[in-house]
Amino acid sequence: MELAKLVRDIPDFPKPGIVFKDLTTLWREGDAFHEAINRMVEHYQDYDFDYIVGIEARGFIIGAPMAVLMGKGFIPVRKPGKLPGETISISYDLEYGSNQIEIHKDALKRGEKVIIVDDLLATGGTIIAATKLVEELGGSVQGIGFLMELEFLKGREQLKGYDVFSLLKE
Amino acid sequence: MELAKLVRDIPDFPKPGIVFKDLTTLWREGDAFHEAINRMVEHYQDYDFDYIVGIEARGFIIGAPMAVLMGKGFIPVRKPGKLPGETISISYDLEYGSNQIEIHKDALKRGEKVIIVDDLLATGGTIIAATKLVEELGGSVQGIGFLMELEFLKGREQLKGYDVFSLLKE
Repeated sequence: MELAKLVRDIPDFPKPGIVFKDLTTLWREGDAFHEAINRMVEHYQDYDFDYIVGIEARGFIIGAPMAVLMGKGFIPVRKPGKLPGETISISYDLEYGSNQIEIHKDALKRGEKVIIVDDLLATGGTIIAATKLVEELGGSVQGIGFLMELEFLKGREQLKGYDVFSLLKE
Repeated sequence: MELAKLVRDIPDFPKPGIVFKDLTTLWREGDAFHEAINRMVEHYQDYDFDYIVGIEARGFIIGAPMAVLMGKGFIPVRKPGKLPGETISISYDLEYGSNQIEIHKDALKRGEKVIIVDDLLATGGTIIAATKLVEELGGSVQGIGFLMELEFLKGREQLKGYDVFSLLKE
């Protein structure tokens, strides 16, 4: 199945000049969504890890099904004020604006191994921040996975030293 | 497995006097998360429907895995400004404050059947709003499912006429 054809381009979202990759048109197709998640799962099949960490909100749509299919726990990284327990947080610059994300302090024990998952790799700001949160808790990042990567934004260059996988590239 | 024991009470979140049911401690346990989603899937096994509709953001963590396991498409209901395509939106009152949610206009065709899923049924404001969005697009709500229901908040009374299921009750 040509999954990439199901991704819809939305020009000028969230602001003029940006072409947004809308994955909702892929998720809406049961066969395609199923195949996309299964191919992510296949990729990580032989990795040694304890948890999938998913980044709010679209990363939940990729990470939660992967966790269930692989029998692993799921840990959310969320926007400020959303996680009810004690958190650590980090600020970072985005392609458009700036942002902050948090993780529960007790989400990971030192030495626990995770795969971090998000829907899209753009400039990489969010994923680098999530990686730092995981590492601040003593977690070990075994892999970083995306449904789609926008190669022209060179986010991968920020992730040197990490094992990065993306299912679709453009 | 006693799933309910993995739910953590966080007093005074998001504001004084509210005891927040923190499900992250359940999702973090791979076996428990897997069992919870599988039991949701079992419940809906014989339902006739086309899509799972999940409500941002915690509803994604329940709905997306259900969709993948059942081979159905996943449609997100999101907070304002998050969906890139043309949307319809609705405002509603929350237990604490008010809120607005949106759905893509082309997410559903008239007559398509959905199960709407969220993590928690509290007063029911969010889920009723989501139901109205689906119905405004001509969609048919075959069921409404939650990982957990807080019965003392009587949200179910707002959902009369709908098929409502919750895996855990308190």
